[in-house]
Amino acid sequence: MPDPPGEGAAERPAPGRRGRRWLLAAALTGTVPLVAIVAAAVAAGSLASGGGQGPVETGGFLQLGATGHFFLAAAAVLAAARAGGALAQRVGQPRVVGEICAGLALGPSLLGRLAPGVMDWLFPSAVLAPIDGLAQFGLVLFMFGVGRELAGMRLRGATGRALLVSQASMAVPFALGALAAVPLAAAFAGPNGSGAAFVLFMGCALSITAFPVLARMLTDLRLLRTEVGGLSLFAAAVGDGASWLVLAAVLAAAAGSAPMVVMVNGVATVLVVALFLGPVKRLLGRWAQRAGGGASESLVLAVGVAAAAALTAALGVHQLIGAMLVGLAWPGTAPGADTGPVGRFIRVADQLTATARNVLLPFFFFGFGLTADLGALDWTGPALPAFLVLLALAVAGKVVGPGVCAWLLGMAPRSALILGALLNARGLTELIVIQIGYDAGIIDAPMAAVLTLVALCTTMMTGPLLRLLRAAPEEEPRAPDRRPAEASR
Amino acid sequence: MPDPPGEGAAERPAPGRRGRRWLLAAALTGTVPLVAIVAAAVAAGSLASGGGQGPVETGGFLQLGATGHFFLAAAAVLAAARAGGALAQRVGQPRVVGEICAGLALGPSLLGRLAPGVMDWLFPSAVLAPIDGLAQFGLVLFMFGVGRELAGMRLRGATGRALLVSQASMAVPFALGALAAVPLAAAFAGPNGSGAAFVLFMGCALSITAFPVLARMLTDLRLLRTEVGGLSLFAAAVGDGASWLVLAAVLAAAAGSAPMVVMVNGVATVLVVALFLGPVKRLLGRWAQRAGGGASESLVLAVGVAAAAALTAALGVHQLIGAMLVGLAWPGTAPGADTGPVGRFIRVADQLTATARNVLLPFFFFGFGLTADLGALDWTGPALPAFLVLLALAVAGKVVGPGVCAWLLGMAPRSALILGALLNARGLTELIVIQIGYDAGIIDAPMAAVLTLVALCTTMMTGPLLRLLRAAPEEEPRAPDRRPAEASR
Repeated sequence: MPDPPGEGAAERPAPGRRGRRWLLAAALTGTVPLVAIVAAAVAAGSLASGGGQGPVETGGFLQLGATGHFFLAAAAVLAAARAGGALAQRVGQPRVVGEICAGLALGPSLLGRLAPGVMDWLFPSAVLAPIDGLAQFGLVLFMFGVGRELAGMRLRGATGRALLVSQASMAVPFALGALAAVPLAAAFAGPNGSGAAFVLFMGCALSITAFPVLARMLTDLRLLRTEVGGLSLFAAAVGDGASWLVLAAVLAAAAGSAPMVVMVNGVATVLVVALFLGPVKRLLGRWAQRAGGGASESLVLAVGVAAAAALTAALGVHQLIGAMLVGLAWPGTAPGADTGPVGRFIRVADQLTATARNVLLPFFFFGFGLTADLGALDWTGPALPAFLVLLALAVAGKVVGPGVCAWLLGMAPRSALILGALLNARGLTELIVIQIGYDAGIIDAPMAAVLTLVALCTTMMTGPLLRLLRAAPEEEPRAPDRRPAEASR
Repeated sequence: MPDPPGEGAAERPAPGRRGRRWLLAAALTGTVPLVAIVAAAVAAGSLASGGGQGPVETGGFLQLGATGHFFLAAAAVLAAARAGGALAQRVGQPRVVGEICAGLALGPSLLGRLAPGVMDWLFPSAVLAPIDGLAQFGLVLFMFGVGRELAGMRLRGATGRALLVSQASMAVPFALGALAAVPLAAAFAGPNGSGAAFVLFMGCALSITAFPVLARMLTDLRLLRTEVGGLSLFAAAVGDGASWLVLAAVLAAAAGSAPMVVMVNGVATVLVVALFLGPVKRLLGRWAQRAGGGASESLVLAVGVAAAAALTAALGVHQLIGAMLVGLAWPGTAPGADTGPVGRFIRVADQLTATARNVLLPFFFFGFGLTADLGALDWTGPALPAFLVLLALAVAGKVVGPGVCAWLLGMAPRSALILGALLNARGLTELIVIQIGYDAGIIDAPMAAVLTLVALCTTMMTGPLLRLLRAAPEEEPRAPDRRPAEASR
């Protein structure tokens, strides 16, 4: 770009002086400064050696400061997530399964068992707090994304059948989880997990679906535009919305406060939810239409998410609920759409959610792995029966509940089974619920580990189960009339 | 999407049973589970009240947990940055100036002076470490972006005049800073700032240019495609590249280690730099061409940045130098270009850099504000003369040095002045250099505050200075022959 041919010659025509000017410029701006710098350094060096103010640190080879060690730990967490994700993809599993396993492996479950010295050296307690900051920030941005996806599903496909299947996909596993929790409460309840709170939390834990994993699986299997795909997404969205509401109520009740505090917090929470879904959503929408922002939408998003998280945390509901509310209220909730001034809001939200999902969530998986010590589970005690019962009920509740419901309402048996298998993937969202329950003191660490195993097993069985169901004869009965419609999109 | 008209009827034709099936489905999946859930909750509640395991926390109203408080602090930091940025924009300054001032205002410089109780309540020591994690992560991603921009400039416009102006824009202010540092060393050197290290660091501090601020200003003022714009970008890139190299050398020397360690670290640093600019860049480029990745490029980027940061930190060079090296080696370094498989690498890098710039850097400004206590400067002591001298030399070095050089080489006087004014903006990059020098113990806290003021003043004067220079008569002498070329782009 600089110095196009002939430029400048018109202003200074004298041709003979040109060489001298170049020399002068080079000397003035190169040689003279260099001499000055060397002179200054030498002068200061001799002054300092006179003053005797010597170096303080006595660094040896490869001495990492606190920040350097933080980056070493961060690199280990991210590299493990990358390796785990690639490995999972190679064996036909969603990447997130591998990333979760990598996070667990770096904690006491594996690395701490095999080489506790390495774990202590790699992750000294000083690096855990900054890593937690990245994990928490990534989590709220991720939950913001979940809220957006839920909001985007709100009105589409709300037929009677879809609503009934949604209800089944939530209520049946919820009931099974709650029933199973009654005998488990004595052994696995956390300090705040008194009676009803533990039972309702376990219901939530079994009824949640991994919305993002589900959506990616549907895309991978080319099921997104089929009846089963649409129905499962709708059921997951409505069912998860209901489960999060129940979870919020459970958390408010379990906060261990006086009844008066619980009541006031509960009313305040309802008001906050109404505020976000009503006035805040309208205001944001109007602001997006005016589109004054200019590169500050992402900052507004981050402020909103952090403030809402702090607000709901103060009300005794978990901070992630607040982040989800901002996602529900964010303008242009349908991800991918890109029309007019609202497009900027959509792009910024997509960008931040993608960053959180790809780069920050591994830090959450690592932190989660520090909590859920799978190796510390006492398999001779109640952990083994609890795991087996919960796994069986989790699968039964998701596959049988909505499956039977869809079959009763006229769906082919195989499609009904595929629907159930899809809803059975709990993945990452389940981990978030577990972390919330553990943070709130509703479940103890062994139950967190047991539920983690349930989450991993149900997520990992989804792929093979679907391949099995789809490999059987009479595949895709609606294929002939679906293909042209798909091609035209 | 679900339930297209007429679907399913073919599989289950019996029309009379349909109503009963719906009722059955509703009962099985709604009523029965609900009854079970209530029963389980009641049973568990009575069991628990018998067991006597009551709540542990005695929460009152609006009790924030540790994580809730972290989000409150994060919301305050981000909201202040948003407000400061908007305010700066309104008065015709770059947003980053307002964001930096907001970060300083939340620290001891303003909030801690006006309302120390509020500052202590809002930012207890427990939230500082997680916020530091976000700041550090944002900084390395930002420096990765700086590296990419430097790499993108490498070959463009390398005429003799451009190179000479680049040298002038670096060497002249460097020499002035080094000379000024000789008398200042006694008062302002940090514990490791022995003689030459302090002098050379001060040279770096005055010679740095805020590359990103410069690029945005050129765009805002429609100067990006002019000769002055291209020349200033090139000079900033080459000059900053040289300044960073010198800074790396100063850090390695100042680490306060034995001469043997310094030498080995220095050789290792040169090897690492050569490794990144040679084999690593080639390998990444080849991998980008194959484009196997699939949604994991951002994870690879983050792993690379964190690992390189840890590596250079271990060598006694600052972690940010490593992050910049990854940016120099990243494939498809020209931001914005989007061709073939490399396009994914460019998009991912743009995305992460934008997130860091917009959402994470405010946490750095806040952390920086905790270090640089402007209010604690003793204006009766050596701080005031130091500030005035450094400010004068910073402006003189950047405006006079490259300006005179460009004028000697045939540029119109006004254009030469505009060039100098553009290079004078130090902004955010200067803050990073100050933080590095303070972390390494080369400068003390008062000098960090003084240099912060110099950085703010030089950045804030750029806009008005340019408006003044451009408002004078005979504006844009090359305008007639430039417009058509610009319109055709």
